[in-house]
Amino acid sequence: MEEKNYDQRRERLLELVQERRMKALQQELEDMNEFDIAAFLTELGEEDQKRMATVFRLLSKERGAEVFAELDAPEQEAIINSITDKELGDIIEDMYVDDAVDMMEELPANIVKRVMLTATPATRNLINQYLRYPEDSVGSIMTAEFVDLKKYMNVRESIARIRRIGEDKETIYVCYVTSGDRRLEGVVTVKDLLLSDDEAVIEDIMDSNVIFCRTTDAREEAAERISDYDLLAVPVVDKENRLVGIVTVDDVIDVLEEEATEDFDIMAGITPSDKPYSRTGVFEMWKRRIPWLMFLMLSATFTSMIISSFESALAKSAVLTGFIPMLMGTGGNSGSQSSTAVIRSLSIGDTEPSDILGVVWKEIRVAVLCGLALSCVNFVKMLLVDRLLLSNPDVTAMVAFTVSATLIFVVIFAKAVGSTLPILAEKIGIDPAVMASPLISTITDAVSLLIYFTMATFILHI
Amino acid sequence: MEEKNYDQRRERLLELVQERRMKALQQELEDMNEFDIAAFLTELGEEDQKRMATVFRLLSKERGAEVFAELDAPEQEAIINSITDKELGDIIEDMYVDDAVDMMEELPANIVKRVMLTATPATRNLINQYLRYPEDSVGSIMTAEFVDLKKYMNVRESIARIRRIGEDKETIYVCYVTSGDRRLEGVVTVKDLLLSDDEAVIEDIMDSNVIFCRTTDAREEAAERISDYDLLAVPVVDKENRLVGIVTVDDVIDVLEEEATEDFDIMAGITPSDKPYSRTGVFEMWKRRIPWLMFLMLSATFTSMIISSFESALAKSAVLTGFIPMLMGTGGNSGSQSSTAVIRSLSIGDTEPSDILGVVWKEIRVAVLCGLALSCVNFVKMLLVDRLLLSNPDVTAMVAFTVSATLIFVVIFAKAVGSTLPILAEKIGIDPAVMASPLISTITDAVSLLIYFTMATFILHI
Repeated sequence: MEEKNYDQRRERLLELVQERRMKALQQELEDMNEFDIAAFLTELGEEDQKRMATVFRLLSKERGAEVFAELDAPEQEAIINSITDKELGDIIEDMYVDDAVDMMEELPANIVKRVMLTATPATRNLINQYLRYPEDSVGSIMTAEFVDLKKYMNVRESIARIRRIGEDKETIYVCYVTSGDRRLEGVVTVKDLLLSDDEAVIEDIMDSNVIFCRTTDAREEAAERISDYDLLAVPVVDKENRLVGIVTVDDVIDVLEEEATEDFDIMAGITPSDKPYSRTGVFEMWKRRIPWLMFLMLSATFTSMIISSFESALAKSAVLTGFIPMLMGTGGNSGSQSSTAVIRSLSIGDTEPSDILGVVWKEIRVAVLCGLALSCVNFVKMLLVDRLLLSNPDVTAMVAFTVSATLIFVVIFAKAVGSTLPILAEKIGIDPAVMASPLISTITDAVSLLIYFTMATFILHI
Repeated sequence: MEEKNYDQRRERLLELVQERRMKALQQELEDMNEFDIAAFLTELGEEDQKRMATVFRLLSKERGAEVFAELDAPEQEAIINSITDKELGDIIEDMYVDDAVDMMEELPANIVKRVMLTATPATRNLINQYLRYPEDSVGSIMTAEFVDLKKYMNVRESIARIRRIGEDKETIYVCYVTSGDRRLEGVVTVKDLLLSDDEAVIEDIMDSNVIFCRTTDAREEAAERISDYDLLAVPVVDKENRLVGIVTVDDVIDVLEEEATEDFDIMAGITPSDKPYSRTGVFEMWKRRIPWLMFLMLSATFTSMIISSFESALAKSAVLTGFIPMLMGTGGNSGSQSSTAVIRSLSIGDTEPSDILGVVWKEIRVAVLCGLALSCVNFVKMLLVDRLLLSNPDVTAMVAFTVSATLIFVVIFAKAVGSTLPILAEKIGIDPAVMASPLISTITDAVSLLIYFTMATFILHI
């Protein structure tokens, strides 16, 4: 058991690079795993891409391909630009096709062209076929490297086949049983094989009730299957039910993390992207953030209009203005609690769009409880703090009552809208995450004001 | 290849239950996987827990334990209450210890006591030991069922051992090599074993540079290791470096989903909980939501105070009031974009707390770009829409200029605070997710007003 991670090793490696002790560096790298080497190269590349490429070329052919697959697009590009066509061709052939496709989707067109030219015709065809699957589909994340068996084989033959062809497969632990015309007939795990008799026939030990996906399914479907059924991989079939690939659990973890990041982005009014924060430039960040800010700023015209139309009333009873931010803030927060809870519940499959009535009824009851609690505390607070402590004589009991009564209705409205909109969005096929706090707040802002001024008109006769 | 999921099968199963055709039902269940059976039982349980328990008892001993582990606490409780001590004991012995511990943490105390009494002393000790690990630690999610090998064994002996003891292990595909005193010495996969010669010795094929976790690490650490290094399982060692358990990739997927849900909750001002939305009662939801709503409502006292102190100025220049919601809204949205992006980046390990200066500098540049764009559009919009279209003569060019200039400063302030607070939180050991939109909005609300009134004093001399 050696070092926990590469942090302790970093200094030593950097020293070796500085002193150009390439032989020692090569030995050191041989002991490391691909992920740590990729992290180290990325760090080197931030300072000097040439040097990174030099260090990369110290790796053996096979390690090279593995490490290459772990790198991000900018480093991959730098390396491609500094190696020969022969070396590039070797790397592409050694990469799993899903990793190669991921890379192609990120690289600039001229580099993609060079990569395609160095690949063998078979690999080129496969990559082209994968690139045609829609982005975010199961087809675009699957890999073609799986072990297939026939149902008439016995366990001994199957294990022999795994030993023969297993080296380059993304997983050998789940094997798929296919018919002559490549239709998926069953699934058998290496555990099943090892725990069965050598002479047992695959047909008898395979599970013919296979959980699978289609190439055109959304990639979240593959993630859901693997996560729900605790699988190591899920097979992917085309329209003719022929087995064309598999999605493995490690790819699914990446999908889940990307989907969660995407939801966080959308819910904060940011156009989502696959690029991590640290690698996104200032101008690109601006482009991803300005649309929602602009839209929400312009829609605030409605709140301005509402306030303008009550301007004379507000001038008479100026004390009311001071509580507008609190009412709008509480409305926004109440609404975003509901929308976030519902959006998340929809996205993990805990709530179905058909539950809409149940969800709204639950939210309204929660809203009544929240509204009453906030309202009571606010009433006491306005009289004790605003009236007595801050000695503002304009804060009368009637004003406090108006604000507190408004609060209840604002909270109920906000939670009802916050829970309804995401479900309606899902029903009509829009991503529910769009219906998150920024949008809900803008709606509740306007409605809160209307409720406030209506209450004030009734109670205070302004 | 049969049905894709259990939806198509549901009707038939419900019919069999209704007609009490238990024999046919039992046969039907035998074909299904544990996850689907658990989903079906949960559905039954919602109407009639007794009937659910009856159907559960149709399952064979082994399937029963597997299905039981997939159920949620309320269903587990109902089943425990309707089976004999003997049946309960069998289930507990058959469950993986991590599943048993998960269950114990959710069940009421009297049920836990009964479960513990039916378990064998060895199981009871193991469960007790696991229950002592802090919640959310690696120790609390690991399982003790792994395959251990010795380094002097050869491949044939190792495979024989896997065949002998593999049945009850949570994974057989990753085996751990331990010394006489149970220290972790290496790791070897079934792929390594199958692709090596029968006589090869484990010591020569094992990887001695093992990625591992400690029982006391946060469970996210296990998730990070498995996700970074594409592992099927990560070994867990105690303070004396003895191997005590493993965490498998399927548990890690659950951890990642729970952590993401927790972040969504915290960021929306909801106290997080493991319970899904659909299973949380109204009163419990109220308890999880009211604290932040109350805190944020009370902190809005500051915005009220600021507005009160400018009351006479606002009375003179009433048109300014109408743009308060837009300014506060834009500030809140700008800030929450930044805080969300930074919080997510910290949580997936893309940004380190030490990057604080780089992050803030980036955010300020983005803020200047966003602020300028919003400001220009707002200036034109106020003159065209508010002044001309809505014919409000109070919206002069100077008023539009005041609001637009305020916008720039508000956006810069909001993005600077939105990006700084989460990083500072991480530095002092608070969950950065707490520094999300609700809190940022409350801060930017108050500061936006101060900037607004300061600008108005300077430009409009109110």
